[in-house]
Amino acid sequence: MYISPGCLEKLSANEKQIIQLKAEKILHVGTVEQDKYPLSRKRLPLDSLREYPHIRPRTTMVSSITRIRSTLDFATHTFFQKYGFRHVQVPIITATDTEGFSEKFQVTTLLGKTSKEEEPVGVSDADVVSLETVKAAIKEKSGVVEQFKRSDSNRESLIVAVQDLQKTNELARQIEAREKSKPATSVKPDSLNFNDDFFGRPSYLTVSGRFHLESYACGIGNVYSFGPRFQADKTVSSKHVAEMWTVEVEMAFSQLGDAMKCAEDYFKFLCKWILDNCPEEMKFVSKRIDKTITHRLEYMTTSSYDKISYREAVEILRKVPDKAFETQLQWGVPLTAEHLSYLADDHYKRPVIIYDYPKAVKPFYVRLNEDGQTVAAFELVVPKIGTVITGNQNEERFNVLNTRITEFDLSRDQYEWYLDLRRHGTVKHSGFSLRFDLMVLLTTGLIDVRDVIPFPRSHGKANS
Amino acid sequence: MYISPGCLEKLSANEKQIIQLKAEKILHVGTVEQDKYPLSRKRLPLDSLREYPHIRPRTTMVSSITRIRSTLDFATHTFFQKYGFRHVQVPIITATDTEGFSEKFQVTTLLGKTSKEEEPVGVSDADVVSLETVKAAIKEKSGVVEQFKRSDSNRESLIVAVQDLQKTNELARQIEAREKSKPATSVKPDSLNFNDDFFGRPSYLTVSGRFHLESYACGIGNVYSFGPRFQADKTVSSKHVAEMWTVEVEMAFSQLGDAMKCAEDYFKFLCKWILDNCPEEMKFVSKRIDKTITHRLEYMTTSSYDKISYREAVEILRKVPDKAFETQLQWGVPLTAEHLSYLADDHYKRPVIIYDYPKAVKPFYVRLNEDGQTVAAFELVVPKIGTVITGNQNEERFNVLNTRITEFDLSRDQYEWYLDLRRHGTVKHSGFSLRFDLMVLLTTGLIDVRDVIPFPRSHGKANS
Repeated sequence: MYISPGCLEKLSANEKQIIQLKAEKILHVGTVEQDKYPLSRKRLPLDSLREYPHIRPRTTMVSSITRIRSTLDFATHTFFQKYGFRHVQVPIITATDTEGFSEKFQVTTLLGKTSKEEEPVGVSDADVVSLETVKAAIKEKSGVVEQFKRSDSNRESLIVAVQDLQKTNELARQIEAREKSKPATSVKPDSLNFNDDFFGRPSYLTVSGRFHLESYACGIGNVYSFGPRFQADKTVSSKHVAEMWTVEVEMAFSQLGDAMKCAEDYFKFLCKWILDNCPEEMKFVSKRIDKTITHRLEYMTTSSYDKISYREAVEILRKVPDKAFETQLQWGVPLTAEHLSYLADDHYKRPVIIYDYPKAVKPFYVRLNEDGQTVAAFELVVPKIGTVITGNQNEERFNVLNTRITEFDLSRDQYEWYLDLRRHGTVKHSGFSLRFDLMVLLTTGLIDVRDVIPFPRSHGKANS
Repeated sequence: MYISPGCLEKLSANEKQIIQLKAEKILHVGTVEQDKYPLSRKRLPLDSLREYPHIRPRTTMVSSITRIRSTLDFATHTFFQKYGFRHVQVPIITATDTEGFSEKFQVTTLLGKTSKEEEPVGVSDADVVSLETVKAAIKEKSGVVEQFKRSDSNRESLIVAVQDLQKTNELARQIEAREKSKPATSVKPDSLNFNDDFFGRPSYLTVSGRFHLESYACGIGNVYSFGPRFQADKTVSSKHVAEMWTVEVEMAFSQLGDAMKCAEDYFKFLCKWILDNCPEEMKFVSKRIDKTITHRLEYMTTSSYDKISYREAVEILRKVPDKAFETQLQWGVPLTAEHLSYLADDHYKRPVIIYDYPKAVKPFYVRLNEDGQTVAAFELVVPKIGTVITGNQNEERFNVLNTRITEFDLSRDQYEWYLDLRRHGTVKHSGFSLRFDLMVLLTTGLIDVRDVIPFPRSHGKANS
């Protein structure tokens, strides 16, 4: 549908609108069933729009988010191709557990065909979401509300967060009222013969593509992958759903410092690219979501980020009065969202890189440092969001890696091919993962990934 | 690892090598277990390399293919972003059947955790691949060999195809010898309660993202998606595996002709981009795989493609002596690989677009033409490859779409959200899908997608 330039007219400076379209002909294209149309009412809040993922791109809010997301997507490919990285499409279906501690989805053809009759009809959310899940959600949402109360930039977000918390409280009450004990029907694996499954063995949706990417880094040099990754985590969270897109990077002949440098450059490139390429969308989100967003992105593009070890991070946090944190801090415990928030939001007031973590809190493939206690991992922590990038130098020494697989009590069979990469021509290499959906939150000022993912999938939610 | 320019020396024109690297220092990085290293022997054939998907990127062949693949990938984003399309990441996990006739993978957490003991140990391919599958493969591979015998450009490919056929024949003999009747263990769906599954209902790996993409086209205009798509098809094929990457496009306010035009422009853009951006790789594949490849790509970039209706295609094919085709042709039957090959390879000798197919051979959402017999679908058929792009105008009329869902005997429940797009502000729109892996075959001269996909997944094959 083209509009010929003659039909557009610039209005005088006094008018509220700047441009006027003079229609010469009106074409009747189609109708809307007004009483059923979800967008008939004026400006639905974001959490109500989530009920209509197929209709919400028609709102100015979701269409703006989509354009920002698409621009960040292209920025990613542009950055890596510009610097000589090759894109590798790693497999989604995998028999390898690349994390060792994430819940996975199984991919199968063993369950046979289901006919239309077997689909549940009229199941409400309350039937499929457990009480534990909702209680966990209440706890997290309370935290979000507290966080917004402390900040003053984000008035509209605070209102949304409070409404969201109230709804979740209401849901918890409903479930407690209804909860009936249903018999569980999960199938015992020993009653199944996976030789008969499609792949002749149990197979899963990938949690991370970095192992597969490593094999390409060891073959052709610097590589990246950009695709969906999966975790069957039932917790309701504003930062996590079951299916999320991730950018993964592996660099041959590189060490921890190289990965940190590349991650920081890439992150700054994304911030700058959005400012340069989405001026209209940034104006919109500044007005509607977060008036400090442009300023914050500019500051993140130009400022230099402190790099501190985990040990230094713990020292800083221990100097804060105890009552500030729910989790007691001592060397060796994982840093939680409240710790990261204190460091990035309050202490440094800009992104900060934390490196050299205790070995127990990072996966087995992270390279063991000389001290035998810490590993060469890092995280890029960003104000209001938390960890956006996790990275590390990979353990390239066959014997060390082999020992760590034993320490983690992992099934060695599935890692034989990964060990091959150390058996044959191993080199020092490192990489990182960027959680793309969090990057969209960061650049829009939004707080829930379900508002920036086209069709979000989470526990009890895959309706289309 | 940088090499300072002073270390490189240009040799005189008489020498076989052009450039010499003068090493000032040799650094011992790591070792290779030579007797176990698969690449110790000189130049393994491609089908042997498939056994080592994690090692094969170290060969000049697979690294060249990977660079071409990555370049085509970036070309795709460049083309669509340049012309104002937005990238939308459609969901991989879905409850909607967007095709109606493909076998799907189910995604579940009902099968519980499997421990290391339950993984099958030492299962050979012969145990998991059925005799029917292998026999179907033999039939197809015989066809491929015949095709290469008819063409004289592709000597090395013919040798590979013949070897491949011999191996498959051998496999069939082995299975026939071993075949024992094992009890099937697939679980009856009525013994499962999908309310207890992660999403509270049966959910699947997506076959196509075009429905979800349509909802964004109706919101923000022209959109595309690039991601993995899945089919649980047990047939062994050189053109198909279980997980393949697809580029999908949807355009609001457009009709069949617009989709055909955009598909042709995009296809030509990819061919030209590879010629312009991969000169070294094209030199390599010309030498090692197909000496006509550069010429063919140049011709596809500059020539104009005939557009013929299905009816015209049938008329052309019926004039060919009957014995040439296995399938007897009459109006209404699907065109098979041999028909498409005749049209593109022999008759037109360049890509050809076929449109207006009988309604029974295309999915229910393709727009019904005025004649009531044909639908507004098209295919871009390319010599040596077959159909690379399928596209269509979508049925935008609520009543017609509703009737077609009934005609196809599909479960209406799962399409309610899709029908919503017609209930509320429907417009004419069209789109297409490009099978990306076939595009890599086309630009490399290779014949089997398992050689161009980093970790191919097919029946009985998901080992890493």
